Amino acid sequence: MIGVVATLKVQTDKTAEFEAVFLDLAAQVKANEPGCLTYQLTKSRNEAGVYKVLELYADQGALEAHGKTDYFRAAGAKMGPFMADRPNIEYLDSVW
Amino acid sequence: MIGVVATLKVQTDKTAEFEAVFLDLAAQVKANEPGCLTYQLTKSRNEAGVYKVLELYADQGALEAHGKTDYFRAAGAKMGPFMADRPNIEYLDSVW
Repeated sequence: MIGVVATLKVQTDKTAEFEAVFLDLAAQVKANEPGCLTYQLTKSRNEAGVYKVLELYADQGALEAHGKTDYFRAAGAKMGPFMADRPNIEYLDSVW
Repeated sequence: MIGVVATLKVQTDKTAEFEAVFLDLAAQVKANEPGCLTYQLTKSRNEAGVYKVLELYADQGALEAHGKTDYFRAAGAKMGPFMADRPNIEYLDSVW
């Protein structure tokens, strides 16, 4: 299993638009990716506009397939104008 | 729902001992805490000895109950001698 923590910094006046795009993306991930076990958008309690996506994948193949889907790429393009910085993606290996 | 990313820095020659204690803790969390939806130990691909626990709780009550269990406190005491730094615990609110 593989973990991902994706940190996304969004312009503070664009958070509603960002969340709408992400919610649609997450629905498609859940509908189409059995190898994506967790895909949860969360937001920082301390930093306005800062979101973290907590993700778990069954294996490296599931992670790679996620990034190649048409809906993931389309969501990235839609979110682009709302972002305040480049995404920071941290990859982690599950211990058991 | 509430997310937690706990970053734990472990002495690099104590990782096996740390993982054994954590695995036992996680088994007890899964057996006893229906409000803890995800509790996954992962390790950094880049930094030796750095672990992140990806956690999701149904609500604030479930998060607080987790921290008050006897087995959580006992595990913390057992892990103490293996740590290289104090834990960093980030609390996050789920967006949906």
